[in-house]
Amino acid sequence: MSWNKPMPANPVVAVAGATGAVGREFLEVLHGLDFPASEVRALASVRSAGKKLPFKGCGLVPAGELTVEEMTPASFEGVDIALFSCGASVSRELREAVQAAGAVMIDNSSAFRMEPDVPLVVPEVNPQDVAWHSGVIANPNCSTIQMVVALKPLYDVAPIKRVVVSTYQAASGAGAPAMEELYHQTRDYLEGEELTVKAFKHRIAFNCIPHIDVFREDAYTKEEWKMVAETKKIMGDEAIQVAPTCVRVPVLRCHAESLNVEFTQDISVSDACAALAAAPGITVMDDPAHDLYPMPGLLAGTDDTYVGRLRVDPTVEHGLALWVVADQIRKGAALNAVQIAQLLLP
Amino acid sequence: MSWNKPMPANPVVAVAGATGAVGREFLEVLHGLDFPASEVRALASVRSAGKKLPFKGCGLVPAGELTVEEMTPASFEGVDIALFSCGASVSRELREAVQAAGAVMIDNSSAFRMEPDVPLVVPEVNPQDVAWHSGVIANPNCSTIQMVVALKPLYDVAPIKRVVVSTYQAASGAGAPAMEELYHQTRDYLEGEELTVKAFKHRIAFNCIPHIDVFREDAYTKEEWKMVAETKKIMGDEAIQVAPTCVRVPVLRCHAESLNVEFTQDISVSDACAALAAAPGITVMDDPAHDLYPMPGLLAGTDDTYVGRLRVDPTVEHGLALWVVADQIRKGAALNAVQIAQLLLP
Repeated sequence: MSWNKPMPANPVVAVAGATGAVGREFLEVLHGLDFPASEVRALASVRSAGKKLPFKGCGLVPAGELTVEEMTPASFEGVDIALFSCGASVSRELREAVQAAGAVMIDNSSAFRMEPDVPLVVPEVNPQDVAWHSGVIANPNCSTIQMVVALKPLYDVAPIKRVVVSTYQAASGAGAPAMEELYHQTRDYLEGEELTVKAFKHRIAFNCIPHIDVFREDAYTKEEWKMVAETKKIMGDEAIQVAPTCVRVPVLRCHAESLNVEFTQDISVSDACAALAAAPGITVMDDPAHDLYPMPGLLAGTDDTYVGRLRVDPTVEHGLALWVVADQIRKGAALNAVQIAQLLLP
Repeated sequence: MSWNKPMPANPVVAVAGATGAVGREFLEVLHGLDFPASEVRALASVRSAGKKLPFKGCGLVPAGELTVEEMTPASFEGVDIALFSCGASVSRELREAVQAAGAVMIDNSSAFRMEPDVPLVVPEVNPQDVAWHSGVIANPNCSTIQMVVALKPLYDVAPIKRVVVSTYQAASGAGAPAMEELYHQTRDYLEGEELTVKAFKHRIAFNCIPHIDVFREDAYTKEEWKMVAETKKIMGDEAIQVAPTCVRVPVLRCHAESLNVEFTQDISVSDACAALAAAPGITVMDDPAHDLYPMPGLLAGTDDTYVGRLRVDPTVEHGLALWVVADQIRKGAALNAVQIAQLLLP
């Protein structure tokens, strides 16, 4: 099955899950990229219906307020692009209605990512894959997105054999309540108050939790498994080996990743650096002499994937090590999804 | 040169740098292990002279207060064991005086670690190396200590070829003022106050800094280099390859490390787990089904090296991944040094 409905130059855009951390960022990014929408609908659960969301406008939509509507199967009538960020079960529930309405669903959840007829797209890496969608395009997991953005320009110089990655993941990956929990819990901790632990399995204030998403039988977490499986699909190379450890750290909204990459042929640091610097969506921030490298606490609200600490890994043939930081809500979610939507424009 | 002076059963112990984070912990650990000292002298710079330090007692020394004395070359007369934690330059300055006094210096700084006639000792790994000291024994770097404690029992089952390690290092590694800076800065950040950045190159509150110690010409930090060089020396195996990335995280006093280990022959998870569980100084804390794994925020003040998230790394032949946490001030510094002192007892 393929998709034959032409996309209008000024599509009607629905934001499903508009009141969440990613949902609010969808509105920011639609404005920031001046997405040529003719209408933007803010949809959420009945709890949020009637709520007003400030919106700075984009395309033909003037700045003003959006009134949140209760999301039902009927919400998608007349919609061309539906940006979804409301969790896998809601996405599954509404997929049929969205497709029946003739809208393309760009889904931020993990619901459809590994389905063979659903492209999993990072515009800097595999923009060509949007061509074969059949109504649903999946937005990859945040920790995968920034990794493949950094790997792709290197891969184009020298194919990659194996990546060992340890992540330093921000609270935002668990949603807006988790971000608030980090702050409130930290404050309570400093004041010697009793702590509320709800968004994470354990206290996150002044702690690191090596557990994101659920554990699988093989003792990896689902978050780790996503980095393995999604990387292969996005890069279109089943042979790439990824060995991940995913860790939550007390940082608000940027993920950092420590990567050790083994290539199949030689690639020098200067060639790697040049390839990264020339690649779209990447800022190389790598000047140790001036204490310059990407840091998650200082890059919130940015769009690029930042790369630094680039160096030879001499412990393996054709090895490089690097450090990658990106805003989890932007490039890790909302920005990437809207960039996918841009690829659909005529 | 070797050391012929016999160690008395009840040695005189000097604590050099007694008012620092590690210095204060020396006193805790001497008490905790009931080290059989006949006297404990608290030494520090002239600024702290006269200060009283509470001491719970050990060996023949009753509980009470220690009066800090100004540390001079004369301070070591009659001393048998000098526990040093005052930075590399002070250690270098006083080495001769300590040796002239006939005391064994157990030095926490990086000053002498790589000198060929100075053993670099982790009691669980290479206790035999204290035998060839000639007046100085070096305490390894904190991030190295906990890694080799975890690696040794595995190495004894199957030799190790390569370790990729990413660290999550606590503020305590930069001393007591850095620990205070983490708290004060976090509080100021939450209250919207201006931040003081002094102990680290950048803000540490809600941030991760991929920079510990100074940068070298090869774009690795000296902290990373220590993990490479010290591991080879402690393990007595120049062939072990270590690929480190050292990162400071907003945690108070436990370091965490994500390790991907490549062995030269097969080692199963259950054999690895059994070897770790049987090893001295290690607690295996690994029960994903009950959300149990070591976490730095929750293990402050503990003595063991904690290992969890043990699993196969299927991306390489004979690979295992694990997650290691230990208290940086205890096992990473003070405890390890006092354990070395214990090895010197008759």
